Amino acid sequence: MTVHEPVVPTDPAGGRPVVPSRSRLRPLGLGEIELGPGFWSTLQETNAAATLDHCEYWMEREGWLANFDRVAGGTTGRDRPGWCFSDSEVYKLLEALAWEYGRSGRGEVDDAVRRLTARVGRAQDADGYLNTCYGHAGQEPRYSDLETGHELYCTGHLLQAAVARLRTTGPDALVDIARRAADHVCATFGADGAPGLCGHPEIEVGLVELGRALGEERYVEQARIFLDRRGHRTLRQDRVPLGSAYFQDDVPIRRARAWRGHAVRALYLTAAAVDVAVECADRELLAAVEGQWEHTVARRTHVTGGMGSRHQDEGFGEDWELPADRAYCETCAGIASVMVSWRLYLATGDMRYADLVERTFFNVVATSPSADGRAFFYANPLHQRVAGEEARADALSPRAESGMRAPWFDVSCCPTNLARTLATWHTYAAVAEEHGLAVLQYAPARIRAELGDGRVMGVAVETGYPRGGAVLVRVTEAPAGAAALRLRVPAWAAGAELEEGGRRRPVRPGAVVVEREFAVGDQIRLFLPMGPRFTWPDPRIDAVRGCVAVERGPLVYCAEAVGQPDGTDLDEVRVDPSVPPDDRDGRVVVRGLAGTVRATAGAWPYGERAGRAQQDEGSDVELVLTPYHQWAERGPTAMRVWLPTTLGHG
Amino acid sequence: MTVHEPVVPTDPAGGRPVVPSRSRLRPLGLGEIELGPGFWSTLQETNAAATLDHCEYWMEREGWLANFDRVAGGTTGRDRPGWCFSDSEVYKLLEALAWEYGRSGRGEVDDAVRRLTARVGRAQDADGYLNTCYGHAGQEPRYSDLETGHELYCTGHLLQAAVARLRTTGPDALVDIARRAADHVCATFGADGAPGLCGHPEIEVGLVELGRALGEERYVEQARIFLDRRGHRTLRQDRVPLGSAYFQDDVPIRRARAWRGHAVRALYLTAAAVDVAVECADRELLAAVEGQWEHTVARRTHVTGGMGSRHQDEGFGEDWELPADRAYCETCAGIASVMVSWRLYLATGDMRYADLVERTFFNVVATSPSADGRAFFYANPLHQRVAGEEARADALSPRAESGMRAPWFDVSCCPTNLARTLATWHTYAAVAEEHGLAVLQYAPARIRAELGDGRVMGVAVETGYPRGGAVLVRVTEAPAGAAALRLRVPAWAAGAELEEGGRRRPVRPGAVVVEREFAVGDQIRLFLPMGPRFTWPDPRIDAVRGCVAVERGPLVYCAEAVGQPDGTDLDEVRVDPSVPPDDRDGRVVVRGLAGTVRATAGAWPYGERAGRAQQDEGSDVELVLTPYHQWAERGPTAMRVWLPTTLGHG
Repeated sequence: MTVHEPVVPTDPAGGRPVVPSRSRLRPLGLGEIELGPGFWSTLQETNAAATLDHCEYWMEREGWLANFDRVAGGTTGRDRPGWCFSDSEVYKLLEALAWEYGRSGRGEVDDAVRRLTARVGRAQDADGYLNTCYGHAGQEPRYSDLETGHELYCTGHLLQAAVARLRTTGPDALVDIARRAADHVCATFGADGAPGLCGHPEIEVGLVELGRALGEERYVEQARIFLDRRGHRTLRQDRVPLGSAYFQDDVPIRRARAWRGHAVRALYLTAAAVDVAVECADRELLAAVEGQWEHTVARRTHVTGGMGSRHQDEGFGEDWELPADRAYCETCAGIASVMVSWRLYLATGDMRYADLVERTFFNVVATSPSADGRAFFYANPLHQRVAGEEARADALSPRAESGMRAPWFDVSCCPTNLARTLATWHTYAAVAEEHGLAVLQYAPARIRAELGDGRVMGVAVETGYPRGGAVLVRVTEAPAGAAALRLRVPAWAAGAELEEGGRRRPVRPGAVVVEREFAVGDQIRLFLPMGPRFTWPDPRIDAVRGCVAVERGPLVYCAEAVGQPDGTDLDEVRVDPSVPPDDRDGRVVVRGLAGTVRATAGAWPYGERAGRAQQDEGSDVELVLTPYHQWAERGPTAMRVWLPTTLGHG
Repeated sequence: MTVHEPVVPTDPAGGRPVVPSRSRLRPLGLGEIELGPGFWSTLQETNAAATLDHCEYWMEREGWLANFDRVAGGTTGRDRPGWCFSDSEVYKLLEALAWEYGRSGRGEVDDAVRRLTARVGRAQDADGYLNTCYGHAGQEPRYSDLETGHELYCTGHLLQAAVARLRTTGPDALVDIARRAADHVCATFGADGAPGLCGHPEIEVGLVELGRALGEERYVEQARIFLDRRGHRTLRQDRVPLGSAYFQDDVPIRRARAWRGHAVRALYLTAAAVDVAVECADRELLAAVEGQWEHTVARRTHVTGGMGSRHQDEGFGEDWELPADRAYCETCAGIASVMVSWRLYLATGDMRYADLVERTFFNVVATSPSADGRAFFYANPLHQRVAGEEARADALSPRAESGMRAPWFDVSCCPTNLARTLATWHTYAAVAEEHGLAVLQYAPARIRAELGDGRVMGVAVETGYPRGGAVLVRVTEAPAGAAALRLRVPAWAAGAELEEGGRRRPVRPGAVVVEREFAVGDQIRLFLPMGPRFTWPDPRIDAVRGCVAVERGPLVYCAEAVGQPDGTDLDEVRVDPSVPPDDRDGRVVVRGLAGTVRATAGAWPYGERAGRAQQDEGSDVELVLTPYHQWAERGPTAMRVWLPTTLGHG
């Protein structure tokens, strides 16, 4: 064990993943908001208690950590285990540990950061290059495969880890390593360097944030250079079997109409584009990204907020191509979507972005980890036709086909990505405005922050959300003079009400602002309607035509085959949309018909209407639904989010 | 040019792709049926006049033919062009040429066979091994990658080419090459040899047919050995990222319930299983395959007959997973499906198999080639959301993403597969029974064949099918005594009638048999109802819920965006199913509403029903439909087979 001086978080306002140097809204630091017991604190504690160790265990076991030791010891070579991007998992774990130490201050978490940092640092070459897969004896040369080699991608995650350290404990060995790596990137790929580009965006977002955190404009400039290089079919055509759109190298980001290609790539790139747009006051670029968000959210996004419709390239489909059964909705794409929407919210204050952040947090991010934090969904389909198989506890799982959460994957990007995201969840819950606070995500919390005008404001939030819809905001520290308290009213919350000073009034989706002089003890209550509701799809979404989903508050629900009445075949259930879904002591129930399809075994499944298997029969059934984020927690099962209705024909 | 003795087809009854040694029905030879001008003869003539040369041109251009010369000259190595399976394309072209020479007797086609045979033969090793990708200086060793190396797959196609030669012209150099290759396979992988298996089935079907053609039971036995080895996870797990089901190595073929994994692999394997079942009188195996056919056709087959729902693995999906927009329906899977159904028909006489053969011929096989026979669809989706781009005339195309026919592909299995299939199309049109003839596919034709009982019967078929539904069968040679004339009545042909001796009577789908003593000049007329009709899907097919397709006779129709009234957006058209589709001088027209969706740009596409973009407005529209097999002939266009109806909601 290393002996060291404990590093204590010194700047409570400094800790947060994104800190635009110019922005309408200031995100809160890790020390400015503390969660109380509830939905998200449970996930954070599980992350701290189980997931972080779990990730380190598997990376040690698979040799991904030892890859750094082997480079340091000069013993690496062609037999190096792991994919070329496995270094990035170590960096994401480092980032997660750094944020978690900032959140909890637990010494053993800091120990882990230092331990891993030391192993990583010894593998760095003298000129700053750091990668365990390329450039050493027996390996391919540095940057010999920019299309699929992921070297700059890995470096980007190293920079993000260093940013977490900088913003929680200040400069340390990890920051030094990252700075040398970033300098090497700028020297190699700068305006006067090689005109290269990484097949997987990530270096860009790492460079901007490290630039912000260190005040190094060179790094921001390098990110801008990478962004501008992309979209001109810069990557080698003979190495891109899935086409240039897969890499977002088909159209410059300023000219693209929608997100396309590999979803995580598209979204990491876009997050960096917002950062660069904000840093460079580039309104054209920001407007382009906002247009892409609108188009993609309206036409290429699943009801869970999940993005990515295709398994083949883990990518977006065309407009309206949103198959429930083959929805890919990669966990990492959900996290990347939060990264984009959060940056757009900070840049614009538009609550639509915070709405999508909430939807994605509850229905993609929270869906991936098991309750014990030691197994994960890589993909998050909205329809499982056949019950999956339990993943093996002691082996790597294929990434997207099992239908069950798995402990580790051949490509294992989601566990560490979840870990770093969950450790900072509370920093997405509220922001400081010029003259007040805005509360965006509802969870029990204590908030105390400096406003843009220098005054300090504190509130306590009490709520059982998302179980219940009542949110009490109590002022715990009142600034002198008028201030604003802005509460997000989710887009789904038609019928919401606000109670203030004994008066209760309806409020519209978007946000409600109470602007006045506050006193300690002042209370504002927001009531969000939490009855379950049917949700209908746009009629152009072919895959779910004639179906409804059920939502309750921010949660999407699903029907699992397990736990339904005996013999209920989810393929043959038809829900009656004229009977609203019911909430029975917290259990959401829908009514309909079961066994609606006459047996047609052996028959050609297409023909005259009269001769078709019809949904004209069937027996009454009540389905008990499950919050989608909990599906498959009771074991392998078939599952549907979208439920065909009795209105359908054919 | 080579000087040679012309080889003339000597046994008109011998030419046919499948000749079971025991079978209820005897397929006709190339010389026993001659097509007259019509739908299929046009495709055959185009194949002969354009496609065969086109294939040879591209394989010369890409170096796939020169690979044989380089092996012969000892100059091959790591830089060998083409995928590891490119040899198989040369063999499929050889097979196509052999059948075409059998059909037409044109000397230049025979020249081509001899020319290519000579080049191929010079690359064969002394021990019979023949493959240009493995086993030579600078290459990986023979059979070092059974999972993905395709060596035995290539050999299987070589054997099929030799079978075509054997059954049209008799033994020659190609047959000698194939015999040596087959002997090498038996020596290497026989009961006492290596327990190996090829990742892509094909050797099995080649071995059985060569065994039949040469009377070599060893070859049939080797096919049986390969079949029995499969399904025990025999292929290396670490080399099968898509899982054992991809290779059909998950479950023995006797125990499988449905076809799964890579569609072409599954279907080639199954074709061989029918052959082995028939040769070995293995009723259990035949029954297993019949069950798989029933299950797969009822639940995993598109309305076109196309098989394969997933791009990721070119594979079958789960039951009811039949997305129109991402339907893969690989051309080669259609051909392989015909191979399976044809064998099952010959083994059982069940007309359902001939029904699927017809559907697949018209809507998959005929869809792939362009009218000029020089461009091809690799995949045959049922919905094109965005107009594709014209394929480049001078470059390899990606195989499945363009939305347009392309001249040649990186993986170019469909052109040669089409070529060999079209050259023999007429041999699928009729069979000889013990005491009569059965006509299965309707085309103008002259048939003269020996019946099972040794008598000879001849008929002429006159028809404009599929343009018209009248089929005249005239007896041109009458056997002495009673004989049977069996005519298939397609499953879709409710309302069909038969006219015989001045009497017209209704006949049911399946088949109608006229059994009596015939005289030359006797006429029988079958009337198939050719009005366009709506076709409804099984309600469990989620992807096309609330939609109808339009069919006319054996043809599936589609709506192309090109040629519709200005501003018609196929995403927003709703067809009125209460108004039957109309046939106006051969143009199929449906009525409905256009512009049914209110603009919702920028909106979240899910929500309350009242707030949804509704199909409650719109203007009357008439859509002119296109036979699916002709789609994209007028240029890039969006297209839909399944049309949402005005009955849908939401």
